Amino acid sequence: MSQARGRHDGRMFYVVIPAGGGGTRLWPLSRADHPKFLHALTGTSATLLEATVDRLGPLAAPDATYVVTGAAHAASVARQLHDVPEQNILVEPSPRDSCAAIGLAAAIIALDDPDAVMGTFPADHLVRDDARFAAVVRAAIAGAERGVLMTVGITPTRPDTGFGYLQCGGLMDGGPVRRVERFKEKPSRDIAAEYVASGNYYWNAGMFVWRVDVFLGELARQQPDLHDGLRRIAAAWRTPERDDVLGEVWPSLKKISVDYAVMEGASETGLVATVPGDFGWNDIGDFDSLGQVLAADEAGNVVVAAGGDEPEIVLSDTKGAVLVPHAGRLVAVLGMEDVVVVDTPDVVLVCPRDRAQQVKSLVDELKERGDGRYA
Amino acid sequence: MSQARGRHDGRMFYVVIPAGGGGTRLWPLSRADHPKFLHALTGTSATLLEATVDRLGPLAAPDATYVVTGAAHAASVARQLHDVPEQNILVEPSPRDSCAAIGLAAAIIALDDPDAVMGTFPADHLVRDDARFAAVVRAAIAGAERGVLMTVGITPTRPDTGFGYLQCGGLMDGGPVRRVERFKEKPSRDIAAEYVASGNYYWNAGMFVWRVDVFLGELARQQPDLHDGLRRIAAAWRTPERDDVLGEVWPSLKKISVDYAVMEGASETGLVATVPGDFGWNDIGDFDSLGQVLAADEAGNVVVAAGGDEPEIVLSDTKGAVLVPHAGRLVAVLGMEDVVVVDTPDVVLVCPRDRAQQVKSLVDELKERGDGRYA
Repeated sequence: MSQARGRHDGRMFYVVIPAGGGGTRLWPLSRADHPKFLHALTGTSATLLEATVDRLGPLAAPDATYVVTGAAHAASVARQLHDVPEQNILVEPSPRDSCAAIGLAAAIIALDDPDAVMGTFPADHLVRDDARFAAVVRAAIAGAERGVLMTVGITPTRPDTGFGYLQCGGLMDGGPVRRVERFKEKPSRDIAAEYVASGNYYWNAGMFVWRVDVFLGELARQQPDLHDGLRRIAAAWRTPERDDVLGEVWPSLKKISVDYAVMEGASETGLVATVPGDFGWNDIGDFDSLGQVLAADEAGNVVVAAGGDEPEIVLSDTKGAVLVPHAGRLVAVLGMEDVVVVDTPDVVLVCPRDRAQQVKSLVDELKERGDGRYA
Repeated sequence: MSQARGRHDGRMFYVVIPAGGGGTRLWPLSRADHPKFLHALTGTSATLLEATVDRLGPLAAPDATYVVTGAAHAASVARQLHDVPEQNILVEPSPRDSCAAIGLAAAIIALDDPDAVMGTFPADHLVRDDARFAAVVRAAIAGAERGVLMTVGITPTRPDTGFGYLQCGGLMDGGPVRRVERFKEKPSRDIAAEYVASGNYYWNAGMFVWRVDVFLGELARQQPDLHDGLRRIAAAWRTPERDDVLGEVWPSLKKISVDYAVMEGASETGLVATVPGDFGWNDIGDFDSLGQVLAADEAGNVVVAAGGDEPEIVLSDTKGAVLVPHAGRLVAVLGMEDVVVVDTPDVVLVCPRDRAQQVKSLVDELKERGDGRYA
């Protein structure tokens, strides 16, 4: 791509990365105080957050990159992203779901640049083909410039029941953009299989590209209170009143995802479209899917090294294992198939790969017995 | 039993515990520098060595109890067995198999008490019923006093191929003692099944009771060089020449087990008998058999706690696991069946229970790559 980053047909492009908590299914690696996006799960020493910013580097400079994060993670985010200016790290006083987080960034960007195009991308997903990813986002930017709320639709590779789906209509202007007719909740296995077979459904990866004026207009139409609250906070953001206004308004904001708050309603009025993307996307929902995206040895074993460390592993007659040696100790496995072994300084986890989605149940069990210190 | 400990029909009874290395199948808990007998694997805070001495307490006082151990473990042995006099801890300069170790103790005991009866018992076996064990050993002592080399035959509960067997003839003097006709090597599964079905075979648990004069006489007959070497060392034991004689003679001693060196040949001349015993014996060969002897919860999970520590465990939908949390960390297991998880400060091991016998292969693999520090 020869297009310079930043400017697209006269409009600046901004990146907004909501970096909230989550990643319970990657416990005990991911913890409340050190969530998934802060970990190097990319096969390199880069954390998921760093890899996300790097991937978007060709499209937006650091001073056009914003991160919205919680108070608990602000310091870690600031240290990992040393090129992103301090004032671009927007700290939420408390989590109020994605619409408040993304809307705050939109309102702040709109203060200086009401014509801005912004794209928002989760901090903890993995992409294999950065060049194709950038091309898809560029196509989304082009759509956004024409006033459409753009999504990135991931071409589904299996009837996954863990994702929401985008139900799409025909190509717009000869493609690749397709109109989004409906946002579909996580489906049953059978319905998911129908979706995949039809060719008209994509996974909703939570990536959106839009003009801030169009987005804020839809927010005002569908969620006027939330819109007004965010505008008030943004207006006070660079003034001495920021803390007071935040303290007063933020806790009153509706806790709602941007999908429910804006995108579903907008799709009903024909305002949403998607660029289908096939760039090796994975949301690393659990240790099994992490094992699917990283390189395996000839026996199908995957080692998820901690950033920088040479992991100590000894395997005998073991296949398809996902090994996460993050405590500097030797992990020894004999005669196991498709097992997950996660070694952290204070917890070791063992489970089968096909049960990896349920590790949250162990955290729940611990909390139930009042033993929350490992969560 | 009303019989006082120590004296039996005028003869003193001595206990000799060879505490050598071994326990590789319990790696990474058992290491070259911290072998099996030094670990608390008894379900209490007692180590296997301590439990062995405690079990024999009703039969022999601490000053009639000897331990033969290597230089590397002498300090640990001395600290664990504070009641055993220092001079009863016999330190081998290097390992030369069981005949040299046991024979050295026999020759030293014979210095002061040529009429002594001694019993030798491995340091790292588990016994569930201490009272029945003591009764069996008393019966063996009675046999030994009449000049027989006595063994303790464990009533086999399964066609185990990991043990040697004692092939027995009829009852002597109306029982319970039976003549041992032959020592049988570890058999194949089919042969082992025949042994068990016949009722004439017992497991050879490596426990022997004999008069030191009878044993040393057989040793002189069958292994004259080994006998003479041990007698020379014993004669110098309490003199300033001990180190010189040890240094000269010990390395020249034949490396041979007491079974091969003495017992097999003695059985051919009708000099060996056994007391069948059924006292809940287990040699804790590996983590699977450890799981069989310790108390399990209702799902069949066994937790092998480190001495004194309250282990931190969280299990979900897990059955038949053997969990060894010896690093003070949380061990979390989800959806596994019959798995072994061993957590030590520098190594974590995961394997199925039915592969537990093969953990040595991991140690071999590590040594092969020149990474011996975990062995």
